[in-house]
Amino acid sequence: MKLIVQKFGGSSVANADRIRNVARIVTDTYQKGANVVVVVSAQGDTTDELIEKAHEIDPNPSKREMDMLLSTGEQISIALLAMAISKMGFPVISLTGRQAGFFTDSNHSRARIKKVDTERVEKELDQRKIVVVAGFQGMNRYDDITTLGRGGSDTSAVALAAELKADLCQIYTDVDGIYTADPRLVKSAKKLEEISFDEMLELASCGAQVLHNRSVEMAKKYNVNLEVLSSLEDKPGTKVKEVTKMEKLLIKGVAKDDDVVRISMIGLPDRPGTAFKIFSLLAARKINVDIILQSVGRDGTKDISFTVPEDSCDAALAVLEEAKDQVSDFTVDVDRDVTKVSIVGSGMQSNPGVASKMFEALYEADINIETISTSEIKISVLIRKDQGVKAMNAISEAFIK
Amino acid sequence: MKLIVQKFGGSSVANADRIRNVARIVTDTYQKGANVVVVVSAQGDTTDELIEKAHEIDPNPSKREMDMLLSTGEQISIALLAMAISKMGFPVISLTGRQAGFFTDSNHSRARIKKVDTERVEKELDQRKIVVVAGFQGMNRYDDITTLGRGGSDTSAVALAAELKADLCQIYTDVDGIYTADPRLVKSAKKLEEISFDEMLELASCGAQVLHNRSVEMAKKYNVNLEVLSSLEDKPGTKVKEVTKMEKLLIKGVAKDDDVVRISMIGLPDRPGTAFKIFSLLAARKINVDIILQSVGRDGTKDISFTVPEDSCDAALAVLEEAKDQVSDFTVDVDRDVTKVSIVGSGMQSNPGVASKMFEALYEADINIETISTSEIKISVLIRKDQGVKAMNAISEAFIK
Repeated sequence: MKLIVQKFGGSSVANADRIRNVARIVTDTYQKGANVVVVVSAQGDTTDELIEKAHEIDPNPSKREMDMLLSTGEQISIALLAMAISKMGFPVISLTGRQAGFFTDSNHSRARIKKVDTERVEKELDQRKIVVVAGFQGMNRYDDITTLGRGGSDTSAVALAAELKADLCQIYTDVDGIYTADPRLVKSAKKLEEISFDEMLELASCGAQVLHNRSVEMAKKYNVNLEVLSSLEDKPGTKVKEVTKMEKLLIKGVAKDDDVVRISMIGLPDRPGTAFKIFSLLAARKINVDIILQSVGRDGTKDISFTVPEDSCDAALAVLEEAKDQVSDFTVDVDRDVTKVSIVGSGMQSNPGVASKMFEALYEADINIETISTSEIKISVLIRKDQGVKAMNAISEAFIK
Repeated sequence: MKLIVQKFGGSSVANADRIRNVARIVTDTYQKGANVVVVVSAQGDTTDELIEKAHEIDPNPSKREMDMLLSTGEQISIALLAMAISKMGFPVISLTGRQAGFFTDSNHSRARIKKVDTERVEKELDQRKIVVVAGFQGMNRYDDITTLGRGGSDTSAVALAAELKADLCQIYTDVDGIYTADPRLVKSAKKLEEISFDEMLELASCGAQVLHNRSVEMAKKYNVNLEVLSSLEDKPGTKVKEVTKMEKLLIKGVAKDDDVVRISMIGLPDRPGTAFKIFSLLAARKINVDIILQSVGRDGTKDISFTVPEDSCDAALAVLEEAKDQVSDFTVDVDRDVTKVSIVGSGMQSNPGVASKMFEALYEADINIETISTSEIKISVLIRKDQGVKAMNAISEAFIK
């Protein structure tokens, strides 16, 4: 018998009507003969309301108690969804993260799953029950409730699908699939039928928001077939899997990431080991550096620039001050007025013309490229921030249309 | 070191200010050198809101799922209270009913506690932490969440106090103790310093609402010293214990119960076994019969009347129809216009004048007594419903003032 894991986010269970809608999707799948495990998030605003209650008491509450508090959100959702499914006449049982066997480490508010003991879930499936599981939560070795942090419910669904060896893990959202670019910004954006794990990972790290990287990484590791689809429209979504079939599209996505600051070091001594020392210091402070560009040496000095997310900027600047003592004096320049536009696609590996086609599209749109960075399946450029949307549209027109 | 269990109801934790107030009471006790376990209910309206959410989906939801849903209420309270205590600088940990070791039967929505495994609670107390426990909830043998039904949080507190051999179990409410009568109805009502378990039980079954009988029965069984006091005013409450010291008051309470229907059987054959057969049938249907009055036989027939709560009336009448076949024909009369007024006090056992003093008070208030029932520590009378409050005041004036 087929086993399908279906995950529904907070907006999909926001009220009684939405919950009934989810119950219909779940029971349709069940009636077609599949075993179904449903993973749900907290209802729409519940989490925000709970956070507000906590902040009224302490703006900086204990993380353990925060997990105790927030985990009630999914518990409410699973009970209500189980009631709706039962009301439609189907056998069903709800399980908290703990009951469903999610064991995590003790990193409250952003715990990592250590193992999933699926005995209870399988016992209920054996009785042909629909099993409704609270996403986002688990239990640590001290029998305390933990939560998984951002993207947690997706991760719960994928972990359960992996452990149960499910045939498919469907992630229901309020969009109907994964697009080559954000359709609200880019008119020529197209919905993808399929995308590979690697492409999905690159897209997510380039600013696309549909699936959290943690869940995609886990799906890739355990080879879980994912599908992203809409809970509001009954049509096929986008499949995310190890290998995708050949498609005409050279690239799978165009993404824009505004959370980028470029830091430039000007007048560094042009001798071996300078860059190494500085980037070792940055790595030691756990600062994630993205695009790095080094100028050709001149007059015994060189310039190096790199990008970091906005919230790492201050820490990075502090490291550079420290480096001045260890390396030599140099000038630091900070530029917040940049954005990163990337194209992603495994097709580009065997198509040397992709980069030039991208640059041509930007040139024709009169957009100046300031920095370029490439990987096997991604090309990113830094441009002025106000040209981001225009750049995405120009690239999309060139590759997708 | 002294160990005190403190229980706070829903109105005591209704909002952030109230929660901070509870945190002050708890930490005051802790600072005086006691170990403190706090049992809390769900916040004010939370339970009603959750019930409404459920009823939008199914007016008659599964009891297991209802327990899954409602148990989130106390979980929210314990997390918030723990945050408030922690914010004041005290070591604290919150525990769900399951984490605190409440094992119950599987009677969802009105489960009974089978045992309390206090290992975790004691471990936390050993570290001098304030332990905040979710009342009203536990876990059954299948690892499913159960709730204890009416009076559940009081019962949780008493059970925990019993198992931990606590020195005192304080039940904080929005009244400041137990009164000889409802002070909203009876002007001369007085707050009691002490009351015995048996008196408290009789008072509760006579319509007084402060403590649920389940918790008092458990306190009596395990000899837990109870105190009922106000979370809003800092003054002594009422102690409930096995033996109370001598007080001047002959009686401890005057109570009124309007939920009474008198059913009369007129013209029963006056021969042995008639009453026995009828009351056996009523008992077999689990109908609780209260006051029974049998007239003196006359012309070979007799009349018997008894009282039942309103919601048992129809079932009782059905039993009587059945009895007519087995015994003989008789006439049935139903009177809903009665109320039961009772006085309770162990002092009356050794004071034969109590009954006559009660009857005199009623006579002087021009109230006609229709039926009388007595036990060792209680005297109840049935009177016309509209005279209930007048009767309570007259009796209170005679005994209490």
